[in-house]
Amino acid sequence: MNIDQLSINTIRTLSIDAVQKANSGHPGMPLGCAPLIYLLYTSIMKHNPDNPNWINRDRFVLSAGHASMLLYSILHLTGYKISLNDIKEFRQDQSITPGHPEYKLTPGVETTSGPLGQGFASAVGMAAAQKFISAKLFSFGQQILDHRVFALVSDGDLMEGISYEAASFAGHHRLNNLVVFYDDNGITIEGNTSLTFSDDVFARFRALNWNVIRVEDIENLEDISNAYNQTIPLKKPALIILKSTIGYGSPNKQGTSAAHGSPLGPDEVKLTKQNLGWNFSEEFFIPVAVREHFQQIKSRLSEYETNWNSLYSRFKSNFPEDAERFENAISGKHGDNWEKLLPVFTNDGKKIATRVVSGKVLNSISGALPTLIGGSADLSPSNNTSLSDSTSFSKENYSGRNIHFGIREHAMAGILNGMSLYGGVIPYGGTFLVFSDYMRPAIRLAAMMKLKIIYVFTHDSIGLGEDGPTHQPVEQLASLRAIPNLVVLRPADSNETVAAWKYALKHRGGPVALLLTRQGVPFINEIADKAMASVSKGAYIVLDSKRKPDLILIASGSELAPVISAAYKLIKEDIKVRVVSMVSFELFNAQTDEYKNNLLPAKVENRLAVEAGVSLGWHKYIGLKGKMISIEKFGESAPDSILFEKFGFSVNNICKTAKAMLVK
Amino acid sequence: MNIDQLSINTIRTLSIDAVQKANSGHPGMPLGCAPLIYLLYTSIMKHNPDNPNWINRDRFVLSAGHASMLLYSILHLTGYKISLNDIKEFRQDQSITPGHPEYKLTPGVETTSGPLGQGFASAVGMAAAQKFISAKLFSFGQQILDHRVFALVSDGDLMEGISYEAASFAGHHRLNNLVVFYDDNGITIEGNTSLTFSDDVFARFRALNWNVIRVEDIENLEDISNAYNQTIPLKKPALIILKSTIGYGSPNKQGTSAAHGSPLGPDEVKLTKQNLGWNFSEEFFIPVAVREHFQQIKSRLSEYETNWNSLYSRFKSNFPEDAERFENAISGKHGDNWEKLLPVFTNDGKKIATRVVSGKVLNSISGALPTLIGGSADLSPSNNTSLSDSTSFSKENYSGRNIHFGIREHAMAGILNGMSLYGGVIPYGGTFLVFSDYMRPAIRLAAMMKLKIIYVFTHDSIGLGEDGPTHQPVEQLASLRAIPNLVVLRPADSNETVAAWKYALKHRGGPVALLLTRQGVPFINEIADKAMASVSKGAYIVLDSKRKPDLILIASGSELAPVISAAYKLIKEDIKVRVVSMVSFELFNAQTDEYKNNLLPAKVENRLAVEAGVSLGWHKYIGLKGKMISIEKFGESAPDSILFEKFGFSVNNICKTAKAMLVK
Repeated sequence: MNIDQLSINTIRTLSIDAVQKANSGHPGMPLGCAPLIYLLYTSIMKHNPDNPNWINRDRFVLSAGHASMLLYSILHLTGYKISLNDIKEFRQDQSITPGHPEYKLTPGVETTSGPLGQGFASAVGMAAAQKFISAKLFSFGQQILDHRVFALVSDGDLMEGISYEAASFAGHHRLNNLVVFYDDNGITIEGNTSLTFSDDVFARFRALNWNVIRVEDIENLEDISNAYNQTIPLKKPALIILKSTIGYGSPNKQGTSAAHGSPLGPDEVKLTKQNLGWNFSEEFFIPVAVREHFQQIKSRLSEYETNWNSLYSRFKSNFPEDAERFENAISGKHGDNWEKLLPVFTNDGKKIATRVVSGKVLNSISGALPTLIGGSADLSPSNNTSLSDSTSFSKENYSGRNIHFGIREHAMAGILNGMSLYGGVIPYGGTFLVFSDYMRPAIRLAAMMKLKIIYVFTHDSIGLGEDGPTHQPVEQLASLRAIPNLVVLRPADSNETVAAWKYALKHRGGPVALLLTRQGVPFINEIADKAMASVSKGAYIVLDSKRKPDLILIASGSELAPVISAAYKLIKEDIKVRVVSMVSFELFNAQTDEYKNNLLPAKVENRLAVEAGVSLGWHKYIGLKGKMISIEKFGESAPDSILFEKFGFSVNNICKTAKAMLVK
Repeated sequence: MNIDQLSINTIRTLSIDAVQKANSGHPGMPLGCAPLIYLLYTSIMKHNPDNPNWINRDRFVLSAGHASMLLYSILHLTGYKISLNDIKEFRQDQSITPGHPEYKLTPGVETTSGPLGQGFASAVGMAAAQKFISAKLFSFGQQILDHRVFALVSDGDLMEGISYEAASFAGHHRLNNLVVFYDDNGITIEGNTSLTFSDDVFARFRALNWNVIRVEDIENLEDISNAYNQTIPLKKPALIILKSTIGYGSPNKQGTSAAHGSPLGPDEVKLTKQNLGWNFSEEFFIPVAVREHFQQIKSRLSEYETNWNSLYSRFKSNFPEDAERFENAISGKHGDNWEKLLPVFTNDGKKIATRVVSGKVLNSISGALPTLIGGSADLSPSNNTSLSDSTSFSKENYSGRNIHFGIREHAMAGILNGMSLYGGVIPYGGTFLVFSDYMRPAIRLAAMMKLKIIYVFTHDSIGLGEDGPTHQPVEQLASLRAIPNLVVLRPADSNETVAAWKYALKHRGGPVALLLTRQGVPFINEIADKAMASVSKGAYIVLDSKRKPDLILIASGSELAPVISAAYKLIKEDIKVRVVSMVSFELFNAQTDEYKNNLLPAKVENRLAVEAGVSLGWHKYIGLKGKMISIEKFGESAPDSILFEKFGFSVNNICKTAKAMLVK
């Protein structure tokens, strides 16, 4: 057996041994795709196992995250910091080799993956970020970042809508730094793909402006190499279709769904090894020749970064300003000039929608944050997400900061993930709040990976009016708040909106969602001096009684203004009222017990919360004796003022409800 | 101007007048697509405005729901029960002409639409339901249902991933009863589609096994007719691409995004009418000739149903059993034989996963419910959604009840919507609970339309173990509970699972989601006699103290068993404990105050809830003084028993937490 084949079989046997030991996992794809991953990591990709963060490394995204052992095996063999013991601890508590790849946990893992289609979209985002940074930061188009982005995808990835959306985007924008390998094994969990999938994938991707190349047998390394080499000079993203056999080598399971997601079983593991000509009885065995082979490969690999570093040194001495800009961007040093540019609002007696304020914030600071980049899923005129001092991101102009994501909310979220993972940029994306539903699987991954992304969700309630229930978010406030690591902010007026943006830009622990109104809201005098300092606390006192309040009114977003009006009416009736602005559950929950108890003292059980959304989650603040004016059904199509009145958000109804609580 | 043109212009002027009067809405597509809708409703479609529920009507789905005035105008003109006054009340409170079409509100509206891509998938579901019912219920393949399903879709619909998924499914299954018209106007909200969309739509749909026909000018009725006629004998679904001009006729806005989503303005309305040769100054004007023309059309249309009724009568006398079966299915009369077939579980000392129980329920009753049809998004071996006495739904066998939806969760949900809308079937669909995120936009529409659909969501917590955080739902329990009209049930053991299925099948007010375990759970003796009667109340007492309890323990699903074990330990320590099974928030919330207060008396403030998900929403039941053992972060990859222990769901930790509450 030649060394290539022996190495490939080492990947295979490590993978099936690990799955067998864990008694859990997916042997099929590692067996089938071992030749590809071997070729990629040893001959195609420029990377440095000693420095998984080298900025010019080729990226590899395992979109089919269930094949995690394929990745762990090759990362171990090429010398990333994954020990053989880590491999043996596959899928165990505290190990760095979890069931699906997890970002930051394992050296060499570029993204968390597993939910199908997500990795594909993230790879597109990485490719877009590379194009943008290269075009934006280097004055003379210097080719400092000349790496590529690779992804390995399965049938499942290609059946998911998000991959179609992302592929359409990538093709349109001619992201020729992207190469996607499709593991065409013809098998899914329920059986042969012919049960439900008969796309002509070749033609489909051609129709989306991709180059498509077919390799008839994944076992043929030369054919894969040739296919890859063909992609290098091309002007479009490339899909390389690899005909493969799931569970390759397993005499009783290969080519069937039985090989996909369960351990082969001890007997079949043995038979598979026999069948592969693997003459070693020890489990997790790595032949000496293979070890030596990979050591040689590793030293060759390290030269890539060494060479690039010299190139970069020369670049840096010739273009110190470009280099500084680039390094600052990559390391996330954005300075604080932008903070001084944040707009200041004063009370001019006019209403203004918080989405409009958001647009003003973005446009005030964009000059000071050159790698702030984003856009909308075809709603930028409504979301106010366009940077007026910038151009559109396009194949003719990758330095454009206004991305037209198209009517592809899900891919937008996935692409934002990829851009954030790539680094160097502050990505944001907008749509109507109700359509955050389309983005949830990707938002979840952003939250899990704690990525820096800002979501601009406008039209945040029935206040959008005539478009009706299909467009009126009701449950989205709660359902976004349910996602761990996601900070949701629903500012009440211009000042809170500016403060919310400031928080979002400075926050480092994960994505932030800004929930903004379509309709105008008044300037709130009571918080003009407080908002900037208080929004980051999640909730704060807007208005208070001198003595212990009879009642605490709590509101978020557009409901704060009518609640304040109601409070003044109640005060006139000698009711002692405290008003609390609840901008963010998550930020408030993170405060000290002292702060929380001061704001919402246990003794004051009369609490009325007001929010134009479902009440789910609010009882944590209002308790069993509190009341809530909320919306527990879907909205209606009518002008917003009529709807707010009808759904109980009038000052009168707030007063009435509050007083009913006091008369007991 | 000939009568066709005059009629088309009547549709246009009605639409722009309505948008103008509402000062809100979308004039562009009604102006552009008026010729198509006119041709469809007058010459192509077989329908009866006097009976919008005629079972053999051609269905029309306006996937681009923002063009609602296009639909309302033609429905009014052809004689559906939408008055001219209704048109004038477009987008107003209480009107039957809301911003986007709403199912059941407006005669002739087949589905709520607006969120892009959803209508496309629903149309696919309707076409699939027609194929299934025809194949399943008529013994000799009698062509009783020979109508077709039409949809009108926009660029936005085709950019959405769900439409790709649904199209791939429809093409694979050769749903040749489906004809989709694509309004290829080249404009989206942000501008020309060339900003971000350059799919070769023709080639793309060909690659998905569709017939594709291009019509160069939507103004040419004959070309559209011819294109449609070409589709009739074909064996695949058809996409007819219609080149059109958004805002057709508006001299200053046509062909631009300005025509899309804002009223034209009074001046431009006048100019548009002038430009169209419309010589009537009155608003909402319908020329007498047009009225008369549509009256003739209407009487012709009514013949379709008359003729079909005679055909059906003959069929009924020849095949009375087939007819009865068909009529029962359509009217939702499923009898109650299935109830007697529900499996009964007894304590055999073994654990069983509730997903396994669910599969047994399905297979026990499937014989008695011949139009129970569904499947999984490629996880049927895990979701246990297959009916073993049935075959796969396929182009060779449309009577198969096991649908292989493919790895297309979103389209699955959209297709289920279409099947439910079509009627005659009880559709269900399964995937892992975490992937319900992929389905949310379609689940939301199902809930809004109160459709009968059952979602089988298995692997409902960290209890799925090694697959790790990407596959472990944490926030999905809360986020599904946030959706109005959706009943979420998380049964604790075999008996509760049977009861949950029974509830789901009998429920009529909307979709039901069943949250089921991957891992085995013990038989709970305490509820063996109660579950069947109590699950429908949402929550009930499992175990109680004789006197006022010191503490109420509340749990759902797999956490109920350890909570009961903990309760017995506490009881041994002379603590008076009540245990409540919380199967469903929604069902419990719907109980009388008396029932609720009896279950959770205000006096008992020591309440400990235990659920392997986020706590969001639980404080409604535990109050400010309650505690919760929940999961406020993402999960981990490890065996399930280790995870439950680690995340605090051990009997010991439950006891410890409970006792800490009592020592104050």
